[in-house]
This record gives sequence, structure tokens and C-alpha cells, in this order.
Amino acid sequence: MESISIERRPAHGYVEEHFRSALNVPQTCLQEVITVLIDALQRELPADRLVLDPDVMRGYSYDQAEWAAHTLPDVVVRPRNAAEVQTVVRLCIEHDTPLVTRGAGTGLSGGANATAGCVVIVMDRLNAIKEINPLERLAVVEPGVINDDLRAACCEHGLWYPPDPASASSSTIGGNVATNAGGLCCVKYGVTRDYVLGMQIVTGSGDLVRLGRRTAKGVAGYDMAGLMVGSEGTLGVITEVTVRLRPMREPERTVAGYFDSIVDAGRAVSAVAAAGVTPSALELIDRHCLEAVDAWKNMGLSVDANVVLLGRTDAPGIVGEQEAATMLDCFSSAGASWAAQSTDPEEADALFAARRLAYPALERLGPVLTEDVCVPKAQVAKMLERIERTALRHDVTIANIAHAGDGNLHPLLVTPVGDEAARERAQAAFEDIISDALALGGTVTGEHGVGLLKMAGLRQELDKPVLDMQRAIKAALDPHGILNPGKVFEPR
Amino acid sequence: MESISIERRPAHGYVEEHFRSALNVPQTCLQEVITVLIDALQRELPADRLVLDPDVMRGYSYDQAEWAAHTLPDVVVRPRNAAEVQTVVRLCIEHDTPLVTRGAGTGLSGGANATAGCVVIVMDRLNAIKEINPLERLAVVEPGVINDDLRAACCEHGLWYPPDPASASSSTIGGNVATNAGGLCCVKYGVTRDYVLGMQIVTGSGDLVRLGRRTAKGVAGYDMAGLMVGSEGTLGVITEVTVRLRPMREPERTVAGYFDSIVDAGRAVSAVAAAGVTPSALELIDRHCLEAVDAWKNMGLSVDANVVLLGRTDAPGIVGEQEAATMLDCFSSAGASWAAQSTDPEEADALFAARRLAYPALERLGPVLTEDVCVPKAQVAKMLERIERTALRHDVTIANIAHAGDGNLHPLLVTPVGDEAARERAQAAFEDIISDALALGGTVTGEHGVGLLKMAGLRQELDKPVLDMQRAIKAALDPHGILNPGKVFEPR
Repeated sequence: MESISIERRPAHGYVEEHFRSALNVPQTCLQEVITVLIDALQRELPADRLVLDPDVMRGYSYDQAEWAAHTLPDVVVRPRNAAEVQTVVRLCIEHDTPLVTRGAGTGLSGGANATAGCVVIVMDRLNAIKEINPLERLAVVEPGVINDDLRAACCEHGLWYPPDPASASSSTIGGNVATNAGGLCCVKYGVTRDYVLGMQIVTGSGDLVRLGRRTAKGVAGYDMAGLMVGSEGTLGVITEVTVRLRPMREPERTVAGYFDSIVDAGRAVSAVAAAGVTPSALELIDRHCLEAVDAWKNMGLSVDANVVLLGRTDAPGIVGEQEAATMLDCFSSAGASWAAQSTDPEEADALFAARRLAYPALERLGPVLTEDVCVPKAQVAKMLERIERTALRHDVTIANIAHAGDGNLHPLLVTPVGDEAARERAQAAFEDIISDALALGGTVTGEHGVGLLKMAGLRQELDKPVLDMQRAIKAALDPHGILNPGKVFEPR
Repeated sequence: MESISIERRPAHGYVEEHFRSALNVPQTCLQEVITVLIDALQRELPADRLVLDPDVMRGYSYDQAEWAAHTLPDVVVRPRNAAEVQTVVRLCIEHDTPLVTRGAGTGLSGGANATAGCVVIVMDRLNAIKEINPLERLAVVEPGVINDDLRAACCEHGLWYPPDPASASSSTIGGNVATNAGGLCCVKYGVTRDYVLGMQIVTGSGDLVRLGRRTAKGVAGYDMAGLMVGSEGTLGVITEVTVRLRPMREPERTVAGYFDSIVDAGRAVSAVAAAGVTPSALELIDRHCLEAVDAWKNMGLSVDANVVLLGRTDAPGIVGEQEAATMLDCFSSAGASWAAQSTDPEEADALFAARRLAYPALERLGPVLTEDVCVPKAQVAKMLERIERTALRHDVTIANIAHAGDGNLHPLLVTPVGDEAARERAQAAFEDIISDALALGGTVTGEHGVGLLKMAGLRQELDKPVLDMQRAIKAALDPHGILNPGKVFEPR
């Protein structure tokens, strides 16, 4: 899940200090370096590639993560091709300057937030779909291509690019790869990583290289393309991606269930898994979301249900009928107050639209801090219970949307605008949810990445020697320490 | 494809020098270190864990790669649990001694071959299936579990572990993970990498750690478990693997096609891909293989066909019927002399048995050097043509079996026993096939790994800076340089 961007939140000046101190560089010295670097960029790139106006730069200084530290970058670069990207990386190496790569800025962990004295490189102008190959079932795209645009282009060839983060209408393939984005259909079709065959990147040494392959299989050395996926701009700058495609699938059947309690809904999710069905989506929306959507769009959902489960199957023919019937049984026997297979595709789409509207509907009520824990399927009900208790304990409104079918929960912590005490309570609840997810055998981030918001969580989750291994890889592939430093792990 | 081991080939003494010189350590000094290390191993491990008898050790000194360098190890250790593995790794670090990890030794690139002055660690006694979890659809196994044993155990729970290398009856999950093994069904279901969720390893620093996860999704830091897959024992020693499972599938339908020419068969493969079908297997067997199988098992295959294509679909119901019919059309219109859907499952299984028998049948004729190139699907016919020309040019018998559906070809270079000139011609042909595959946009290894046989090919395939990145990762995760040194890349 990534948010649909409604409007950019204002920069929080108070967080700048975080990065200044993290970098440990005297202010004046930094300023000199940047001036020289900007001169070099102006010399080596066409004029329209650079953004120096602070008002414009501000829009490129943060992603959609609530309360994640960010500051104004010293310069924003919007290159048009891989060679220009390489120029930017080389100059950053030469001038020992941090480089933060961003796509559309729909990330939810602060991974693309600007840090003090950094260059922000925006990949939106590298947006060509270079190839769609029906025989090899692959596409070659530049990183700035919008997810939905790739899907539409594939559709014209009878092909399908499955990864579908909720931000699909605005997020880019490069950003999806950098965060290993998931979405609604990954319960059956996997995440971005499962579709990346190869890529072209500029390395931390400034080389423009190809990783991975175009063939269906290959084991020539370490899986470098796989390592790049989800590395959040800390190991290289992606300039092209080769993705695997699937044939178009059958139209989906939708089953909806209304539940009185979130625990009953959780039991229905476990029942579906136990029944051997692999739904093409299995989404949960709780009362807080339903009410927010109703208040905005007047859909009347919250009158009938405390929790809605939406299951889908795209299995063809009789198998799809059977899977839909099985899901319906699972919903009913888990205690649904109402459950039915939707016979009207428009009605089904409206229910999924409500799911997609949940986040922006909640944002109308105040800042929303988005969680992204993932737990074993058997623990979904228990995790939802714990989230309810956490909400009560910290007196925080916590709404839930969840990719319930793969245990990926998105508790949404909603606070009144400007209420500092509520913000602190929400942040404490956020940390408690992380601890609960880990205690239940889960992970601190299912699909949003570590960025800034989950750095403490990552330290909790990983064995110390594993964190050391990751830092060693970071040091090996980013020897100058310029690639998005201070994200994912603390600088050494 | 990995071979079904018929019998172990004898050690080739002449290759020992290769490793002695690679290590650059004076012989006497090496001997002292080893004596001290063996003493330490004897002190810290129960007596039955060590093998010192040269005749027994010989059986653990090479895998199934033809003409790949190997020598007698100084000691073989067969631990029973992860703690004992950790002890071995720690002692190897302490005594600066190379450690070569092996499973069943069915590899085809020499990755598990013993090197001078090394310890060989055999994982066959870590063979417990610790958990099969139908709800989470995962299994937790020790590395020495045989592939077929895991599949059988999953079957009892209505679950399926797809990766099916031809060596499935003897190869181990640990070895499958270390080489990212493929197989027949990966044209539809992917390779070992697609099924690895997490693992426990002993690191190059001697720590016993967990990588990856048990949840369906997760992006907590770099994908370390993914990086280990296919790393051929050079980045860690695997002590446990958590694999993803699928629900059992429908019985497959089989379509067979006989072709006069390998080029027609190649066109049929492209036609199937272009028709949008995803077969659950699409295998090619050429005249040389058919004749060898006939000579051994008298199946009468080579009377009717120069090339056999075997397609399978496991799509349920009417979709499966349609896919089988489409494959049949593709075979016929590409020029099959005969094509039919098998209505008798036993007949279909017999055809696939012939496919599996091809390798051992050829081995009866003399040493078989196995190729493993993978090319884009559109290039299968052209690659097969080039292999035919290479066979003529070098006067070498080259038989072909191929996972044709994903462009993964296994030219099998057969030479008369003891014919040194033929061996040299075969090795020249082997290198030409690699160059041709690269020229057609392919890779030097689809599923067997680099080991020793593809080290030169790897240098050809990868950009120099990418090779440097891989070496940097190797140095970062194996700081003492003890993990299978001299495989995949040359030592620094």
C-alpha cells in the first residue's frame, strides 16, 4: 500500500537539525562544497536540468511519510538520460556530496527525503517505455515510467504487469523497484522483486552497468539485480529496468463479507488460507476507514459493517466459481453478518474503490502515520486485537486497512492537526505495533521499506551480525558513502 | 538439469596442481596448519564426524562436472547440527583454511570440488524436515534433505514444492539453494530462488544467523537470503532453509511432437510462447539422446523422430484442454511429422522418463561435458543451429536436451573414454557454445552455476565493474576468504 497523493504536506523545518547533526559536517564547509558542485553541474548539464528555486525544491524534499525528517536540498537535478545520471553521480563522488534519488515521492517511510547538503536527483524525465516484448514476456522501461502507464501499455499486447501498489496511478517503476513495492494482487502474484529480471544502474563508483539478464533463467554470479530491489537508493541509481510480464488474466470474481468484529474477519482470513484457496486479492477495511469514506463519499458502508473483507479470485472457469464459493463459506462460517458474491462488476469495483479511498479519506481528518507490519497469516486476528489494545492504551485513533491475505497490515494512526501530544502518543503506538509484530513472528515492514521511519525497527528485527553484513555490503557497493546515506541504517 | 548419478567418476590426479598454484601456499606450511586444525576438530567434535580415510574422502572430493579440477581434501567433516557447522567454520577461520560445502555432489559445474588443503563439510546428516505448515504454506528444512523427500512430505499435506531439477531423487535442498537449481517445471513455476523465504546460515565471520523471514512479504533491509541463493557456498554455509510452498496442482496433460529437424522444433517452441500459453513443462530431446536411450532401454523412439518436443499443461479444466490444443496446433504448424495429446498418463510418463534417461544413457558412451546456456526464447532455434555447426566444426558429438520453454539448453558433449584429443575438441566446442549464447543475448549458465567450469564464461558475460562489485561483496561477507575460495571468481 502506498498513498494516493492528495497534496504535498509542508516541509517541517524542525527536522533539519536531525540531518545536520547526523552528517557531522560544519555548515560553512558544506556550503563551499555545494557551491563548487553546483557550478560543475551547471557546466556539465543543460540548464533546464537544475532546480535551484527553494520553493520548487521544497516539493522534491520529502515523500509521503508522516513526521519523517527532511530538509531542503541544496540542488535538485532532473536528468533526461542515463549519461546525465552518471554525470550527477560522478560529480557527487568527486565532491563527496550525498545523493538522494526519488521518483514520484509516494514512498511512506521517508526513504526519498532530502538530507542536509544533499543533491536530490528526480527520475521523472526518464520515462520511456523502451520495449514490450510479447514473445519473451518482458518490458524494458526507464525508471520514471508510472506504474499504471506500464500496465496500460502491456495491456495493448495482451500482457500484464502485476505489481499494483495503491499508488499505481502516480508512483514510478523505479521507486517501486527501489522499495520492492507490493500491492493488492501480491497475495497471489508476488511483489516487485518477483518481476525484476535485470536493470541498468549507475554504481556507487560512478560506472553505468547492466545487472541481471533478459533470459528466463540465469545464475551467472551473485543476484545483483535482486540485491538492488528494495535497497532504497543506497546501493545504486537505477536508470533502466527489465521486468517480467504475464499473460492477461481472466476477469476477477469478488466476494464481500461484512463482520461485526475485526477478530471474526481475521478468522475468516485464516480460514481462506486453510481451505487452500489462493485469492487474487484479500483486503480488509475497518470501521474507522468505512466511516471516513462515508463521511467523504457518502457510500453508506459503515451503516452495515464494522469490518469489510473483500476477496477476489481470477482463476478461470469452474475453478474460479469454486474458489469464490469457498471464500463465501469461509466468510460465513467465521461469523460474517452478511456475505455475498458480487454479480455486478461495477458494484465490486465500487467496493475496491472504497478500499483505495480509505487513506485519503482519513487524511482529511488529520495527519496519518502509516504502519506496514507483516505477520504470519495465522497471527492476523491476534495482531489486529493487539492493535485495538494499543489504540486504547495510547488513546490514538488507529484505522486498519490490510492486505489481509498475506498478513500485511497497514494500521493508520490518525491525529488531529497540530495536536503535538497526540502526535507523541501516535509515535509511541507506532513503536508498540512494531514490537507486537516482531513478537508474533512478523516483520517491521512488509512493503514500504525502512527509509527513516523503520530504522529503529530494523535494528530490533535483525540479528546484530546480519545488520553488520548489510552495512558491509553498503560499504562495498557505495565506497564513497554518497548514496542516500543515513537511510535504512545509521552511517558508520 | 542435473545428472542422475550413476556412479562417481574417479578423481583426476592431474588437476591437483591447479589448486596448489592457485592458493600460492608452500606445501609444508599448509601441512602443518592442517594437522593443527584436524587436532582441533577432533577435540571439539564427536569422533564419528570426521573422515580421514583417503578412500572415503575421495568420494567427497568432486561433483558431477566433467573435467573440473579437484583434489583430495585434507579432512572431511559430516556434522549433525548447526552448532557443529559453526564450530567447523570458526576453526577454519582460526586456521585460515578453505572450507568447501557440499550436499549430494550432483552439481555440474565443479562448485563442490575439493581444493588443495581444504576442509570439505558434507551436509547430508542435517536432514530433518522440521516443519510443514499448510496455513502459512511453508516448510522449514535442514540443508541435507533430498529434494524428492521434501516433495513427498509436502504431498501428504496437499502441498507442493515445485523446483524439480533432474537430480531431484538425490540432490539436496541445500545444494539446490546454493546453485539456485531449476528443473522442468520452472518454465511456469520459477526456480529455487522463487521459493526461498529465509534461511539460517553460518556467516564468513562464524556467526550463526537468520536471514529472510517466515512472512509472505518483507522488505526489512537488503535481501540477504536472496543473495545467498546461487552463491555456491562462497558467502556462507546454509544450516536451515525456509521455503514457500504451493497447493497441489491438477494432473498434467501431455502433448508430444516429433520433428525431422531441430530448427522446426525450435520454431514450435517460439510459437507456443507467442500463442500466450504458459506450459508447465516444454522439453526438447534430440536424435543423439533418443538413440542413446533406445540403445539402453529399447524404447523405439529414434525410429520415428529426429527431435521430440514434450509439452505439458497443468491448467485446470477447460483451460488445460485449450492449452493442450494450442500446443498441438503450434507443433503441427511448425512442421511436426507427428503430434498428439497423450490420453494415457503412463505413456506420457514414459516419454518424460526418456527425457530423464537421456543423460545417463549418454554417459554409457563416454564422459559427458554438460553445457547450460540460456538464451531468449526467440533465439532457441538459432542457438540450436549454431550448436549443430559447432559440433561439425570441432568434430564432437553434441546431444541436446533442453528446457526449451525457457530457452535453457543443455548441449551434452560426448567423447570416447580416454580420447584426449576428443576431450580437447569438446572443451573448445564448450567455449564456442558459451560465446554463441552470449552473442544471442543469453547467459553462460541458466541453472547449474559458475563453479569452476564457467569462470571464464562469467568474465565474458559480466561488465568488469559488475565483476568488481561481486568480488567486493565476496570480500565483505567472507572477510577471511575461507568460503569456497577459487570458485565463481579467481581469488583476489
